[in-house]
Amino acid sequence: MNLPVLRLQAKADRRLRGGHLWIYSNEVDIAVTPLKGFQPGEQVVVESAVGKPLGIAYVNPNTLICARLVSRDVSLQLNKSLLVHRLNQALSLRQRAFSEPYYRLVFGEADGLSGLVVDRFGDYLVVQISTAGMELVKDEIVAALCQVLKPAGILFKNDGKMRAVEGLDEYVSEAWGSVPDEVILRENGVEFAAPVREGQKTGWFYDHRMNRARVQHYAKGLRVLDVFSYVGGWGVQAAAAGAESVTCIDVSQFAIDQINANARRNGVEDKVSALKSDAFDALKAMVAEKQRFDMVILDPPAFIQRRKDVAKGEQAYLRANQLAMRLLEKDGLLVSASCSMHLQRERLLDVVRTCGRTLERHVTLLEQGGQGADHPIHAMISETDYLKSMIFRVLPAL
Amino acid sequence: MNLPVLRLQAKADRRLRGGHLWIYSNEVDIAVTPLKGFQPGEQVVVESAVGKPLGIAYVNPNTLICARLVSRDVSLQLNKSLLVHRLNQALSLRQRAFSEPYYRLVFGEADGLSGLVVDRFGDYLVVQISTAGMELVKDEIVAALCQVLKPAGILFKNDGKMRAVEGLDEYVSEAWGSVPDEVILRENGVEFAAPVREGQKTGWFYDHRMNRARVQHYAKGLRVLDVFSYVGGWGVQAAAAGAESVTCIDVSQFAIDQINANARRNGVEDKVSALKSDAFDALKAMVAEKQRFDMVILDPPAFIQRRKDVAKGEQAYLRANQLAMRLLEKDGLLVSASCSMHLQRERLLDVVRTCGRTLERHVTLLEQGGQGADHPIHAMISETDYLKSMIFRVLPAL
Repeated sequence: MNLPVLRLQAKADRRLRGGHLWIYSNEVDIAVTPLKGFQPGEQVVVESAVGKPLGIAYVNPNTLICARLVSRDVSLQLNKSLLVHRLNQALSLRQRAFSEPYYRLVFGEADGLSGLVVDRFGDYLVVQISTAGMELVKDEIVAALCQVLKPAGILFKNDGKMRAVEGLDEYVSEAWGSVPDEVILRENGVEFAAPVREGQKTGWFYDHRMNRARVQHYAKGLRVLDVFSYVGGWGVQAAAAGAESVTCIDVSQFAIDQINANARRNGVEDKVSALKSDAFDALKAMVAEKQRFDMVILDPPAFIQRRKDVAKGEQAYLRANQLAMRLLEKDGLLVSASCSMHLQRERLLDVVRTCGRTLERHVTLLEQGGQGADHPIHAMISETDYLKSMIFRVLPAL
Repeated sequence: MNLPVLRLQAKADRRLRGGHLWIYSNEVDIAVTPLKGFQPGEQVVVESAVGKPLGIAYVNPNTLICARLVSRDVSLQLNKSLLVHRLNQALSLRQRAFSEPYYRLVFGEADGLSGLVVDRFGDYLVVQISTAGMELVKDEIVAALCQVLKPAGILFKNDGKMRAVEGLDEYVSEAWGSVPDEVILRENGVEFAAPVREGQKTGWFYDHRMNRARVQHYAKGLRVLDVFSYVGGWGVQAAAAGAESVTCIDVSQFAIDQINANARRNGVEDKVSALKSDAFDALKAMVAEKQRFDMVILDPPAFIQRRKDVAKGEQAYLRANQLAMRLLEKDGLLVSASCSMHLQRERLLDVVRTCGRTLERHVTLLEQGGQGADHPIHAMISETDYLKSMIFRVLPAL
């Protein structure tokens, strides 16, 4: 069990000592421990420049983040035993936070498991592995999940964009038992089917749970427009909470079919209509037709994927929010969300401020939310903080 | 009804056009309209440098913020009619947001009523006036409140620190009907008596309602420490939600008596103990005694009152959070709040990050909240955004 050593340069231990888990390739003392000497995913003992052991990490010599710490205790390698321990720690938080077994069970770094995401849908688990280090222990991951949760089925949904960067193939396959194409979940009292194979990411976005609960809180009696609906998480919950009517917009026919099915599942199909269209095209047409809603929900895909796209992405947020604000009744609610890690909370607020100024509205921020407790933010890793949701009241200028 | 004119300097209209409501004394063209020509509280038509009317404001020639816009429509003066309109607009939001009549009804600028705060406790209203402009129309305020809400009693709690700056006396007196010394409110299903005459501010802090609801969500079975308790808003709610035990700390015997009474009121007096002590002294003693809690709630008074106190204030937040973190069990929850407008959200997070680094803990941020929807944030006036509350999970370093 003697692991090879990864030696850091002088002062390169500062980030790790500050609680972070990542090591960048330019921080390694490659004269002593050349990165090309390691296999992707191989575990190492990380040492400071003076040879002090800092913990155990797994390495990928081909990526900018060349190593990720898995433990500060050099006796704890990433194996089934450590996985079981970390899974139990993750599970205990979710069981405190939620009364039903529908949640993100593992959220990477925040749960001490860089490169691993696990979403739980009752007896079914959907696993996403994004690093070579986690891929190497995927059998141990399955064994640990089976021990801790005794699931009926585990699905590897290993098709994320980051896998290519790590030199990993993409695949979707059952890792344990059997998993149906659609699994059932309940969120804020409303039931949904999540398409775990065909859908986006793991099939469902648990991260907005609390924000959808707040939309339910305000939705009664309102005419609601839900833009970028995906399978209807926001819109169907608004309808179930008593909205007068809900119009969902999504560009994909697959999503439209899912929205309609989820509306039927909750007996609100008479209130929910699903429109297949590009969101911007639909919004522009509705503005031209002078349509008005009491609440508009904007939960777009990440318009900013990389830091260099910030300026262009902010323009997209601005266009979407301006169109949404123009569709509001005189005393309307705008629910504006962003999952772009590169869009700061304050910048999303700026986007809505600009809309208010341009359209001469009195805008107040009623509530702001973020990702739920099953997506905990690692306090030292700002990259784990990505989700924003804000509820604005929009009135004519005072 | 011809109002005098307040003429701005060139470009000084930019802030108002951007949606803000304040005019600073150095932005007035005092050659044309000398500030000393106005009486405190007098209403004026604000004009741009080229004579374009921008709205109606009230003036105080003796304060840095020398005028506050009350309307952008120059036909709408601040009188009973406008007050009734604004109160109805404010009320409609609260009725959407809350099922019971316990809330802040008017939150100054955000409700288009700079200088006015009204808290509602069922049939009783507590009013705080902080500007000369509002003081001049206090009879109209009372008349408008009577028309809109038909209250049993209205109390002027006009003793805020800002009154001296505005040249106003401090007084506490009934403005309408009669108001008992203690009024009853319900928050998140728990009943409290708020000391409207003797207590802090209006007697109760509605702003943390949602954050206390989240503490209730996690409190079951926990041993809770509630520091800076005031009348027990957090602690008694934690006990009512099923906490195993709650220790409240407050420096004032008056608050201690109120905590005990509020605990009895909800049948949780066996679980709640109230300790009269300086918070820092008590925390230090508990650390020395190696006491441990599952949840520590820190909701201190504003340690930063003025911008120049930021550095010193941050040290106080740091000391409090460090002591709190040391009192946590191995898997504990830290609820850290700040009502200091000058402490940015990110800086409070930095305070807790520093604690985590110093004490070598794995800190994740589970939930973050702000002021409730009855304290809406005016999107263009950053001064209306002041409240932060964060729930952290604190584990040993991974």
